[in-house]
Amino acid sequence: MNIDAIRNDTPGTRLIKHFNNAGCSLHPKPVIDAVTQFLEEESMLGGYEIAALREKEILDFYVAAAEMLNCKSTNIAFVNSATDGFAKAISSIHFKQGDVILTTLNDYASNQIQFLSLKKRFGVNILRAENKTSGEVDPDVILQLIKKHRPVLVSVTHVPNNTGMIQPINAIGEICAAEDILYAVDACQSAGQIPLDVQQIKCDFLTFTMRKFMRGPRGSGVLYVSDKMLNRNMEPLFIDMRGADWVSENNYQQIADATRFEFIEQSYAVLIGATVAIRYYLNLGQENVYTRNKEISAYTRLKLSSIPGIQLMDQGIQLSNIISAISAKKNIFEIKAALNRLGINIGAAQKKFALLDFEQKHIEGTLRISPHYYNTQEEIDILADSIHSLNP
Amino acid sequence: MNIDAIRNDTPGTRLIKHFNNAGCSLHPKPVIDAVTQFLEEESMLGGYEIAALREKEILDFYVAAAEMLNCKSTNIAFVNSATDGFAKAISSIHFKQGDVILTTLNDYASNQIQFLSLKKRFGVNILRAENKTSGEVDPDVILQLIKKHRPVLVSVTHVPNNTGMIQPINAIGEICAAEDILYAVDACQSAGQIPLDVQQIKCDFLTFTMRKFMRGPRGSGVLYVSDKMLNRNMEPLFIDMRGADWVSENNYQQIADATRFEFIEQSYAVLIGATVAIRYYLNLGQENVYTRNKEISAYTRLKLSSIPGIQLMDQGIQLSNIISAISAKKNIFEIKAALNRLGINIGAAQKKFALLDFEQKHIEGTLRISPHYYNTQEEIDILADSIHSLNP
Repeated sequence: MNIDAIRNDTPGTRLIKHFNNAGCSLHPKPVIDAVTQFLEEESMLGGYEIAALREKEILDFYVAAAEMLNCKSTNIAFVNSATDGFAKAISSIHFKQGDVILTTLNDYASNQIQFLSLKKRFGVNILRAENKTSGEVDPDVILQLIKKHRPVLVSVTHVPNNTGMIQPINAIGEICAAEDILYAVDACQSAGQIPLDVQQIKCDFLTFTMRKFMRGPRGSGVLYVSDKMLNRNMEPLFIDMRGADWVSENNYQQIADATRFEFIEQSYAVLIGATVAIRYYLNLGQENVYTRNKEISAYTRLKLSSIPGIQLMDQGIQLSNIISAISAKKNIFEIKAALNRLGINIGAAQKKFALLDFEQKHIEGTLRISPHYYNTQEEIDILADSIHSLNP
Repeated sequence: MNIDAIRNDTPGTRLIKHFNNAGCSLHPKPVIDAVTQFLEEESMLGGYEIAALREKEILDFYVAAAEMLNCKSTNIAFVNSATDGFAKAISSIHFKQGDVILTTLNDYASNQIQFLSLKKRFGVNILRAENKTSGEVDPDVILQLIKKHRPVLVSVTHVPNNTGMIQPINAIGEICAAEDILYAVDACQSAGQIPLDVQQIKCDFLTFTMRKFMRGPRGSGVLYVSDKMLNRNMEPLFIDMRGADWVSENNYQQIADATRFEFIEQSYAVLIGATVAIRYYLNLGQENVYTRNKEISAYTRLKLSSIPGIQLMDQGIQLSNIISAISAKKNIFEIKAALNRLGINIGAAQKKFALLDFEQKHIEGTLRISPHYYNTQEEIDILADSIHSLNP
């Protein structure tokens, strides 16, 4: 990978050292240019009129996302965020009293809150499979719980948002496919850093946002829906004119493809920017990005682990680009703010962002340092030196 | 109103004659500038970092929307579209078999499809109140149906999207308040052309998009939630980290204000553009805009009604800026396309967009001509002459 060329495409790298890619990454210039140009055209010629003129580019969103995930464009829906996609996906399940949702101790907090809302509303039961001692959820435990409880949904967050682990989504997918259990994968933090192939994951739903490692604009995301779900006529609870035709007073006809999970109105400027971001990623190569990211995150962990008073909190055999750490000496939010004043962006997580994980680790929060392929060793050295100097 | 100054703010008026404001209106330049500047800053300094730096401006969205609707900022949620807001609002109702939703023959097709989905999922019954001979829904019929069926929801679309009528939302609000029935108003097509005051409407939920007569960016909208609903702990079914804190393994605590209806992730660039559009509207004055729009739409109706072969299809005592018409001689989609080639934008509606209304009128669709305050008499004259010449 030509890191100089990539940084040249990324004007923000000239101003700041950005290690908050698990929050929002820095956009490549072509992404922002695409969004702003589309907006300008809308304001000159009209929103509906530009959407009609540029329909082919709009449709390329579905083609590009399908290429990335190794599926058909008919399996793709545009959503506003991973959570938006996840909510629409699971809204297609007819939950009733006593239904079981099987999830993990490290699924994303928003998903967990949604499960608790479904518990309150419909009386579903939530089971969370135990982890292996290495930190990942145990596929054998998943299998046992499936056989015992026949859950209506297995939900796994691929890369948790506040710890460096990577969950074994392919192994769980094999189990769910064999047992014919609906399987949803939240790939919000993995998309753009780790290759994703839905044929290997064998999931029914997969969601991710564009703003994180995909480097797209805020307000955009992808929902993948399997042919199995489409053929079973799964449809979102709040389906609208986009997803269905109103055919008679008391009937509507859902459309065939995954856009039945979209609402009719969306920001096409943002969608176009998301398309450019997916194409940018595909041009770099998913495997190339993953290889570079493993090097970059390993080097960051090495440097951070050598700072006195800083303790890395990541568990797992395979680690992601999300690096969680605590400080023995200084409040994590003070560290984050002080680094920000030095032109270094990192994240910091409160306990409620990852309640079960942080309770198990007996911590109140973590620094969250998330490099991406465009970061350099020099930037990481400065990050480590800065934390060291702040944490005397 | 200084129409020259307004048109000077609206670069699109130099290129086209835009009568598709019920689709997307032309944005004022300050709106687009605000969005693009925010996006540029995000790409230079990081998305989360800019959101933190510009938090006060972000919060002004709630203040501005509250000022417009005559409520508190704690009653406002940012949503991606009116449909997104409407779905989140009604997702807070615990529907069960036999519950009644009372609506009209002219509620928006997406809302109607959502009601049909709720019927399929939960076995709710949908009642549609009859219209008066003048075209509007009859508040007396609403009252009778409420007394007889005690609906869990009364839903009314203020200005239907494919006919020029204005529904009597205040009269219905009085009834719903007196009967303590939950009342949702879809103001998607009225916001920005007709003043809205939720204290007078007496609704529990009100939704609108920003892209239509509000002149904001696509992908933005407003959801108003009454204190009554907030105090009754109504919360969206798919509540997330934005709307609730995850406090213990099996519990979350919803937040106090209407942002409990939001998802945590949103495009702040689009939100900032929406804020500028609301402020632009407030600066013009809601009553001034309404007065101008009544003149402009009356003149448009006068001109169109004089064209041989063109028949206006609007019913109602009070008419909106949505003008529906059919042609005895030419396909409406051909007329729309031909006008578009002349630099004149209008809309055209298929039957499924307004099924019940169009069935009653025995038509397959309509031209939809929707002027806004920035249109001039000269533009309307050219529109009418062009339709005349296309429709020989």
